[in-house]
Amino acid sequence: MINETMYGLGSRRSVIREIFEYGNRRRAEIGADKVFDFSLGNPSVPAPREVEEAILDLVKNSDPIALHGYTSAQGDAGVRRAIAADLNARYATNISPDSIYMTCGAAASLCIILKALNASSADEYITFTPFFPEYRVFVEAAGGRLVPVASDPADFQIDLEAFEKAITPNTKAVIVNSPNNPSGVVFTPEKLKAACALMEKKSKEYGHPIYLISDEPYRELVYDGKEVPFLVNYYDNTVICYSFSKSLSLPGERIGYIALSNKLEDERRVYAAVCGAGRALGYVCAPSMMQRVVVKCLGKTADTSVYKTNRDLLYNALTAYGYTCIYPDGAFYLFVKSPEADANAFCLKAREQELLLVPADDFGTPGFVRIAYCVSTEQIQNALPAFQKLMESYQ
Amino acid sequence: MINETMYGLGSRRSVIREIFEYGNRRRAEIGADKVFDFSLGNPSVPAPREVEEAILDLVKNSDPIALHGYTSAQGDAGVRRAIAADLNARYATNISPDSIYMTCGAAASLCIILKALNASSADEYITFTPFFPEYRVFVEAAGGRLVPVASDPADFQIDLEAFEKAITPNTKAVIVNSPNNPSGVVFTPEKLKAACALMEKKSKEYGHPIYLISDEPYRELVYDGKEVPFLVNYYDNTVICYSFSKSLSLPGERIGYIALSNKLEDERRVYAAVCGAGRALGYVCAPSMMQRVVVKCLGKTADTSVYKTNRDLLYNALTAYGYTCIYPDGAFYLFVKSPEADANAFCLKAREQELLLVPADDFGTPGFVRIAYCVSTEQIQNALPAFQKLMESYQ
Repeated sequence: MINETMYGLGSRRSVIREIFEYGNRRRAEIGADKVFDFSLGNPSVPAPREVEEAILDLVKNSDPIALHGYTSAQGDAGVRRAIAADLNARYATNISPDSIYMTCGAAASLCIILKALNASSADEYITFTPFFPEYRVFVEAAGGRLVPVASDPADFQIDLEAFEKAITPNTKAVIVNSPNNPSGVVFTPEKLKAACALMEKKSKEYGHPIYLISDEPYRELVYDGKEVPFLVNYYDNTVICYSFSKSLSLPGERIGYIALSNKLEDERRVYAAVCGAGRALGYVCAPSMMQRVVVKCLGKTADTSVYKTNRDLLYNALTAYGYTCIYPDGAFYLFVKSPEADANAFCLKAREQELLLVPADDFGTPGFVRIAYCVSTEQIQNALPAFQKLMESYQ
Repeated sequence: MINETMYGLGSRRSVIREIFEYGNRRRAEIGADKVFDFSLGNPSVPAPREVEEAILDLVKNSDPIALHGYTSAQGDAGVRRAIAADLNARYATNISPDSIYMTCGAAASLCIILKALNASSADEYITFTPFFPEYRVFVEAAGGRLVPVASDPADFQIDLEAFEKAITPNTKAVIVNSPNNPSGVVFTPEKLKAACALMEKKSKEYGHPIYLISDEPYRELVYDGKEVPFLVNYYDNTVICYSFSKSLSLPGERIGYIALSNKLEDERRVYAAVCGAGRALGYVCAPSMMQRVVVKCLGKTADTSVYKTNRDLLYNALTAYGYTCIYPDGAFYLFVKSPEADANAFCLKAREQELLLVPADDFGTPGFVRIAYCVSTEQIQNALPAFQKLMESYQ
């Protein structure tokens, strides 16, 4: 008599959560320093100093009724002005403050825009493998259907031929996540340009827009000066879904935004639908104090240098041991080919070395594993012999 | 091609928001002190000192990675233990920490439990007039149907006869909001006992539980030592939806919880569905720092004495002028019978006196208006001559 779909979602743990819980038990058994847990994408560096300063300043120096009071559903007007100005200065765009909608983080951003756009159970949402498994949950909750398109297995860039084949008259939107969780790949400008050209062609052919939803919580987590293409500059019908979770190491605070391109078709109607979807999903407004905190920290990030150190250490060691790794330009994940076809079997074998890795089957990419390197550099150093031993068992 | 229901929800402003926007324009025209705005249920007293102290203490003395990091989806385990212990101590209940689910406020609590319970488009949710208009939005977003039942117009307590007639085999749940927005009425133990007995009888008759959803953001906002019946002690199949918005004057921070009675039928299955619904709606976890803040403030409230002062001043003056008012034991609303049948016409006439009141048509009670007295006592004093003049125009 209750909702069986919701019961299913709540009772079947995600594979990541399952491994993390195993890790908790194992840590209790043999000690935390003996377990090499690479399962969770939880930032391991603290929020930048400016976050603490902003909170203290706001609490001490502002009217608590305003600070903790409702903002408008779209978010505080000053906050939206500052975010639009920051985006426009960084990316030479022309996004209006009235096209920004503050949200409770990236998951909320995605659920709201999907609910706003979805008009029929036939609506399809393309994404590229590997993809964050919750995309399927969010798309189905909005009433649509997720259509995963296999990426080029050599570099996990977009496979344009496969992409073109997947676009149908029912394609409502394409979800892009670059830098990518779990591959760490940043899509190249060339591939994105070609993909956008395809979408434009198909939009014209079918007589309705195909929206581009850019899920970019890892936008600032790139290394060696790599640039992340800002999709508003590539495609008119772009919707940005952003979260401050990773850039400011605030994942629990649930703060992010939706930004609509000023060139979006029917922009005012889509924005109204975003407001309606936020209302229907019970969001009311994004956390009021955190709206003001993130605005005081625009342009700042947590110290992500440890992620680069970790990436270099792990990538170089694992490739030297004989693993096939996708080179990650961003995010904090290393995507590794399982030495045996069954990545689940490989992950169980890794457990014998106390290595907790995530099989990528749920990410739409069987035969691969995700290693979240947002951990201490020491943990990686200590884990390297285990990785080596594990590979030797396959040779 | 977008979702027209969401577009409708986002483009049609609520009547309250409409009046508030009119107030903003009018304030700019004639000065803020000349406009007597009673439209919004926004707390007018600051959060208690303990909130500021808790934030400062947490920011200065805890590990920022844990403080701002993800909690489990259900909420931090220590936070849930503290809330369960507090409830059990205050109400002699036996609620388990594992039956608490932390949420982004009351609207989120309602959306999540409705999504968790709703199994069919035939499912019906009874509520009593007058009711918070967003109930309709939330119930319909979950896929169900709202069934408003008229209360006794003399005192806005439950009309048991009307209630019994409204219960059908499709009744999935009954939503109770006491102290009530917009009437300020606290349901009496006698009426609640009789209503619960009816629900038990009908549950048996139909062979499935009828859930009782208690929406109680105003639980602590009662005057003259009035007691608010805690429904877990009245009915086994009770779900509490709580928010700290009003008690701690933190409406923008979006923090509250769902608590399931330990006697709820299929409690573990319902809790799993709650977790699933939170996931499907994109909630991930409730804001992490605020979870810890509210736990440090359990048992505290903002200084609500001004609300009592305001209630007494307004109720006594308006009844003396000849208005028919429902005596409010709680919340911060006065519910007043319109002197003419059309409450919208009355509210427009009130505008001529610069009084901004909300017609209660959207609350399911035509012919009444809501006066939100969560304003300064000075505003009420200054508004009294206008209320008097307005009534004189009807005599």
